[in-house]
Parts: sequence; C-alpha cells; structure tokens
Amino acid sequence: MRVKVRGSEGGWMKAAVVAALMVGCLASVVEGGVVEEAIAFAEGRKEKYVKELIDLVNIPSISTLPEHEGDMRRAADWVSKRCGEAGLENMEVMETGAQPIVYCDHMHAPGAPTVLVYAHYDVQPADPFELWDHEPFEARHRNGRIEGRGASDDKSGVLLSIQAAEAVLKTTGGKLPINVKYLLEGQEEIGSPNLEAFLSDKKNADKFSADLCFSADGGQLSEKQPRVITSLRGLAAVEVNLKTANSDLHSGTFGGAAPNALHVLTEMVASLHNPDGSVNIPGFYDDVQIMSEEEKANTEFPDAFLEAGMRADGIRGFPGEEGFGPFERTAVRPTLEITGMWGGFQGDGVKTIVPKEANVKIACRLVANQHAEKIQKLVRQHLKNICPDYADLTFIGGSFDKAQPYAVAFDAPSSIITKAVLEKTFGETAYFTKMGGTIPGMNLFRQKLNAESALLGFSEPDNQLHAPNEFMRESIYHKGREVYIRLFQEVADHFQRDATAKSEL
Amino acid sequence: MRVKVRGSEGGWMKAAVVAALMVGCLASVVEGGVVEEAIAFAEGRKEKYVKELIDLVNIPSISTLPEHEGDMRRAADWVSKRCGEAGLENMEVMETGAQPIVYCDHMHAPGAPTVLVYAHYDVQPADPFELWDHEPFEARHRNGRIEGRGASDDKSGVLLSIQAAEAVLKTTGGKLPINVKYLLEGQEEIGSPNLEAFLSDKKNADKFSADLCFSADGGQLSEKQPRVITSLRGLAAVEVNLKTANSDLHSGTFGGAAPNALHVLTEMVASLHNPDGSVNIPGFYDDVQIMSEEEKANTEFPDAFLEAGMRADGIRGFPGEEGFGPFERTAVRPTLEITGMWGGFQGDGVKTIVPKEANVKIACRLVANQHAEKIQKLVRQHLKNICPDYADLTFIGGSFDKAQPYAVAFDAPSSIITKAVLEKTFGETAYFTKMGGTIPGMNLFRQKLNAESALLGFSEPDNQLHAPNEFMRESIYHKGREVYIRLFQEVADHFQRDATAKSEL
Repeated sequence: MRVKVRGSEGGWMKAAVVAALMVGCLASVVEGGVVEEAIAFAEGRKEKYVKELIDLVNIPSISTLPEHEGDMRRAADWVSKRCGEAGLENMEVMETGAQPIVYCDHMHAPGAPTVLVYAHYDVQPADPFELWDHEPFEARHRNGRIEGRGASDDKSGVLLSIQAAEAVLKTTGGKLPINVKYLLEGQEEIGSPNLEAFLSDKKNADKFSADLCFSADGGQLSEKQPRVITSLRGLAAVEVNLKTANSDLHSGTFGGAAPNALHVLTEMVASLHNPDGSVNIPGFYDDVQIMSEEEKANTEFPDAFLEAGMRADGIRGFPGEEGFGPFERTAVRPTLEITGMWGGFQGDGVKTIVPKEANVKIACRLVANQHAEKIQKLVRQHLKNICPDYADLTFIGGSFDKAQPYAVAFDAPSSIITKAVLEKTFGETAYFTKMGGTIPGMNLFRQKLNAESALLGFSEPDNQLHAPNEFMRESIYHKGREVYIRLFQEVADHFQRDATAKSEL
Repeated sequence: MRVKVRGSEGGWMKAAVVAALMVGCLASVVEGGVVEEAIAFAEGRKEKYVKELIDLVNIPSISTLPEHEGDMRRAADWVSKRCGEAGLENMEVMETGAQPIVYCDHMHAPGAPTVLVYAHYDVQPADPFELWDHEPFEARHRNGRIEGRGASDDKSGVLLSIQAAEAVLKTTGGKLPINVKYLLEGQEEIGSPNLEAFLSDKKNADKFSADLCFSADGGQLSEKQPRVITSLRGLAAVEVNLKTANSDLHSGTFGGAAPNALHVLTEMVASLHNPDGSVNIPGFYDDVQIMSEEEKANTEFPDAFLEAGMRADGIRGFPGEEGFGPFERTAVRPTLEITGMWGGFQGDGVKTIVPKEANVKIACRLVANQHAEKIQKLVRQHLKNICPDYADLTFIGGSFDKAQPYAVAFDAPSSIITKAVLEKTFGETAYFTKMGGTIPGMNLFRQKLNAESALLGFSEPDNQLHAPNEFMRESIYHKGREVYIRLFQEVADHFQRDATAKSEL
C-alpha cells in the first residue's frame, strides 16, 4: 500500500463513500476509500466523458484506408493530449513506420508492480454507408447509447482507461497505487503489422516493460454479465485473384466453351468446408489445442448470450461445425470465413459475359496452438492444389494479415485479478470464458515483454462491432471506468498479498 | 429484273466491272453490272465509311445504363439522318416506351419481295475501363482495325447495310431490285424487352411486314471464312440476392456460429453444375432439340476457329460439358453462366466480417426448343429448393432478361440466299453452322411478321465483343458492305427463279 488516504472534496462525495462502506463489500476499508472517492469523482463527470467519446469517434481514424492517414495522426495527437489532461506523464506519439503508438506513463509507485494498459484508437471502415441510420463519424448520444464507428471498438476502451487513471490521480493528489504505462495503438484493426518489429527494438521493449497487461479491448457477455476471457483467436487472412482469360468474353459466342473464372472460384471456395461444417484443408486442425478436463470444468460457453446477439441481427439459424455448440465454435474451434468475394458484372441489369477473373478474401480465426503463418501457407498451398491448370492464382497482400492466437491459464494472476474487479463492480459471478476475436498485441506482450495479459474490455455482443450502426452502451462505458479504478488498487493488493504469503512461507 | 443497267461513272470503275466480268463468277451479266458498279462506288468511299463508323461509335449508346438515355436518342437521330443521306425514305424514330427504333424504307419495286434489314445501334457497357488501351468511346483507326465499344457489335452492321443500299441507289438513279425496310433497334444488348409489345401492335406489324429478314448482327468464323448461321441461342437471366443477417457481423465474435451469406451462396452456385460440366437443375434439358442426322451432316462445328479466338485471349484450357466439342457446347447445348457475383468486403486490405448478404447474376443460353420463361422459372425454383431455411432469397429484375432461341432450316430460302452471296464475295465455301449468341428479334420476326430470318453479320471471334478493346476489322467492314450490295440482287433473282420454276410446273 503506497497510497495515502485522502478526504473527499465535498459533502455528497462523503455520503457516497459512507454508502459504499455501509454495503460492506470491501475487504480493505483504506483502499476502499480511495477507490470510492475516485468512482465518485468520475460519477460527477459522466456527461463530459460521453462528450469526449463523441469527439474521439468523430475523428475517422480508419487504419486500413490510406486516405485517412491524416485522421490517424489527428486521433493519436488527440489521445496523447487527453492523457496529459488526465495527469499521466511522458506522453509520446511514437513512430512505427505506419500508424503511430501513443505512449504515456505514471511511474511513481516504487516497489509496486507495473501494469501495461493496452487499447487501440483505430477503427474498421464504415461501409456499407447506406445501412447506417446516421453518419458513422457524426456520433450520436441517444437512448442510453453512444452511436458511431469505433464507439465500442475500441475508443471507449481508450478513454475509460485514461479517465480511470485521471479519477484516481485527481482524488489522490497525483498518486496511483501502482505504476502504469499505456500502449494505445493505431493498427489493431489491420492486425497490428508493425507492432512486432516495434517491440523487437530493445529500446521500445524496455520502455514498455511491465509485470502484466490489461487490454481495454475485449468484451462482456451482456450489460449485466461480466466474464474473464482466457483466450483469443488468431488470424490468418489470404486474398487471391483467379484469372482464366485476359478479357471478359461474350457469353453467347463462348459460353460453354470458355472457362468461367467465377465457376472455378465458387467451386474451389465451396469445397473449403466439409458437409459437417469443418474446414476441408489438410493439416488445418493439426495443432489445435484440446481443452483439459479441468479447464472445461472451469469454462463457460454461454450459447444463449451469443445467440441473442445473432437473433437481434435477424439471424434465425446457426449452422456450423458439427459436435460443437455455437459458443465453442467461436471460442475453441478455428474457422475459415469468406469475408469478401467478387467477379464479373455487378451493375444494374444484364451483361452477358464469361468473367475473366474472380477474387476472394479468406479470414481464418485460429486457436491455440495453431500458428498463423503456417495456416496461411496451408491455405495458399491448398488453393494452388485444387486450382485447375487453366487458371492462374495470384495471392494479394501478405504482411497485414496474420496474428497469433493467445491463451492464458484461468488461474494466472491476471485472470484472478480480473475476476475480482469485475465481480466487485457488477455484483455478478464473472465466468471464465473465451473470446473469438483477435488482438495481436496479447501474444506479442508475452513474447517481447514477458508479460501475461488479461482482457478487460466492455463491448457487448449486440454492439455491431465492425458493422453498420455500431454503438457503446453508456451504462457499460461508465461501469468499465469503475472497473479500471478498482483494477489499479486490486493489482497493488494482489501483489502485496502475494508477497506477504511468500514471506510467511 | 426491275433495275436498269447504267454505265459506270469513270474509267477505273469500268475496268473494275470488266475485271469482274472476266473472272466469270456471275451467272447474269446484267445484274452483275449493277452489283459491280455499286461495289466500285462503295470502294471509292471506304475512307468516309470508316470515319462514319468512328463517329457512330463515339456516341456512347449504352442501353442498359439509364444515364445514357440522351446518348441513345442522339444515336437514333444520327442513324436516321444517315438513312436519309443514303437515299432511303420515310425515316422515323419510333417510340417503344424505352429506347427508340429507327425505321426507314425504299418501296419502289412492285412485285419484288420485301426484305427487312435488322441491326442494333445500342452497345454493351464499357467497364472495366482500366482494361481498355484507349477510351472506349473515342474510337481509333489503326492497324487495319476500327477500335471502340460497338465497332463490331453492331454499329458496323447498322452502317454497312445502309451504305450498301446507298451504293446501289446512287449508281442506279435511285432504284433497288427489291423493296427494303430497316428495323434498327436500341435494345438488343438488354434483350429487346419492348420489341415484342412493339411488333404486337398491328400498325407496327403492318409497317414492318416483310417476306424475309436479314440481320446485320451476326458473325463470321474468321476474316476469310464466312458461314451461314442456322440457329441462335436464347437467353434466360436470373439475378438473386441472398441474405442471412441484417448486418455484417464481426468474424471473431461470431465467425463459426453465424451463417455466412457467401458460404451459402458459393455452395449453391457450385452445385449448379455437375462434375461432367452439365447443368444440375432438374428439367433444364427437357426441351433441348437433338439435331437430325441430315442436319448433322450439313452442319460444321469448326472448333479450331473458336479455340483460336479463345487462345488469343490467353485461355489455355477448355473445360465444358462432357460428350460435346467446344463449338457444339456454344451452339447446340444450353449453358448456365455466372456472369457476376459479389458479397462482403471488396476494398483493399483485411476487413474481418461475416457477410450478411451475397448476390449472383446467372445467364442461361438456351437452344431450340427450350423456352426462356420456363427456364427462368426452373432456375428460380431450384435456387429456392436448395437454399437453406435460414437464408432469404430475393429475385431481382424479371423483364429485361429473356429471349427465345431461334433455329431455321439449312435449306430455307434465307439460308440458300445467304450462302450464295457469302460465297460470291469471299470465294470460299460458307459452312452451315450455328451461333451461340442471342438476337431476340429473329424469333419475334417469325412470330409477329411471319418472316424467317437469316444472320448476315460480320463480327469475328477475336473482336472482343462485350469486352474491353472491342474492334471491327476494316477489311470485313468493307466486305460486309459488298455482301449486302449483292444480297439485294440475289433476293430478287432467287424469287424470280423460284417464280419461273413454279410457272414451268
């Protein structure tokens, strides 16, 4: 415990502290006072915090589109400035060779652990625009939601983790119970292609070194139901162009005799799944980790939450790999998704051609212990193998398209701490579960910083992540901030208890 | 014989007539003189005729794109004016409810047969523009070619049939050996959707009534090799949107659990062909006419010409329906082609979504005696049958997307006359063969005007019809004009001989 107790600054705040003490939910009265003061401080600034999420959403920081390079810079500068206002220190917009990383820290708790807070300020593209019910980068606040691209994924994560530090710093005269560093990146939505090289630079690895990491990118099961995520899937994307002729041909003169690139590609793509829903690529499942009985017993696969999210989006059937429930399919099973495909005439009306070429984008989600590059190679080689010799395959891209999966033990310190702060904040048991998404940073922090990560993010299944009409639920945005306020204290306490236990041995 | 012999107008022209007489290719010296004078007249105007093809190509008369409605009118007016300059009469730009029909006639040969000349002044869209080596509607004349969208299909056909009448009219003091009417339409490339209603109007049917028709839309096998086309394929197009969700979903959170519209559609589309290349839709082949032994013996399927055209376009394999050669597959067998397909993210880079919808455009080419509407219904019903119940199908369009196939006997008068004029002009045996393309007019002229049609057009397999870098070979453009000059005379002679033979019985 390195944080002094400070009195609250006003009468109503005192009352809040007293109320918190009265419910008796805090083991340590001393820490509780600090935490509750900070929470009360944040409580009084909810309107401001909503407004600043709107401001950040309105910067269209789309990392995959080169025309938004200026917006990426603008967003990074905005975030860096906000860190300074919070009382965080040593802000730096760091070059990565592409989208910058925002760094800041607060390193005034000698002997206490150092936590790396991770989030990303970049967002997915907003198309198809016609399906939004408002401009995606003109955020709205209505019906208890902040609506706009990136409101949930992950600009709320960026902000609430900064605001949490601010609340503690402003109510403690500038002290935090632990040391913190922030790594706020701008490449998550494109697979963090430069992050590995960045952290492989010893200077950067030293700068970002930490005892453990918390990612403010991650998700709840619902508004009321928190969870501790013990694994993330990786990503292996493959894009291919298939060509059968130099030009589109007249479908009358040549139709039936000339190869049709769309016939060839649809047949190849359709063959990538077996009738039982599994992926039909030799070796695809070779390295898939099977859960131990102990892990199974401690892990929940809450299908109902996932299905509710899908039903809300008009989905009425749940096909998938046989032998696994819907949640398992997204969590412990790898997948191969066609994320885009096109060829031939797409305008209005009839154009009678035999298309000369066709394209497909494939994204595989990987689970421990699959390896992204190995899977990319397998997919590419398999496509070559099944491509007829009269068609030419060209693979597009190759560097911005992969990330390793990440799994952490349910009894690791990061998992235990996360469970504790979630349960304190939500008053509900936080399930151990797994997440289907990908955050390349987690695996890199393990490899390059020797630090394990926990996911402590607050998107919900119905938030329309990566889709039109994305939103952040306001209640969760504020709860998430409370979680981070508690987290700083809980990490300090956990390591203190751990040290005490060890000294008593 | 209603055409008087006129002397030629200059010394070199006389020499040409003498040369023609010396090769002894003409049975009737009297008609031969007239024909050769007209050919010589045209010979002296080649440069002008090339220039006017360039001018017509430069009007972007794309019937399928509403934004070119003004260009369609401009092209119709241009063509109508050109008919008048040729000495044709009663020009009229006739309303159809959509793209207009240009009418003109020359009806001063009482007792002689009436021929309807058909061609179309509309063209296919020019995209993908980046594959053209010049602006598609800024035609070029180089290397013995006129290059531009529509140069071959079918603006050369429109012009050379008018220029042929002009050549005869200008060298005979305004007389033709037969009566002619022109039907120059602007909807061929979209399946002539209004032509049936137009010709069902008795006033129009009377106006266009004829003894037989010649279509200046059609094709040769090569620069030197003419052919008589005895059938055309029909068209049945189906476009469908398949939807599995209201929004695209995050492929991490939902990938594996949510249905993927592109998975569903690629599987459905891939299943539309059997491994032997035949179409896998129940009833699809039910009405297909099998050729008689006599027709087979009289019909050529010159695979080499078709394959040469495809090889020139970079094609190096010829998959297709087993049991049939490449030419047969395009001529006497129906096909099902995917002409366009799209869904999901098509921009640069990776967007990790589960696509909510996907689209496909299907174009079936039909042979006698298939029926276009019946096939459309079969295809739609089959797609419904194989669509999983968690996906919604919506069919797009429905009226601009079908045409009946057309077949005519190889010993019909139109076929015999066509063979004669082609052989006289090219000095080569003209094969009886079939054509894979579709011209809805042919079947309508049979139904509504009670007139059989012959195809007498001059595109070649390598002309890049409907594709980037379309061109018309200049030598064929001029030869085609000669063919039409001879045609007017040959029709007169054929009916004369026929009447004589009958009177001698």
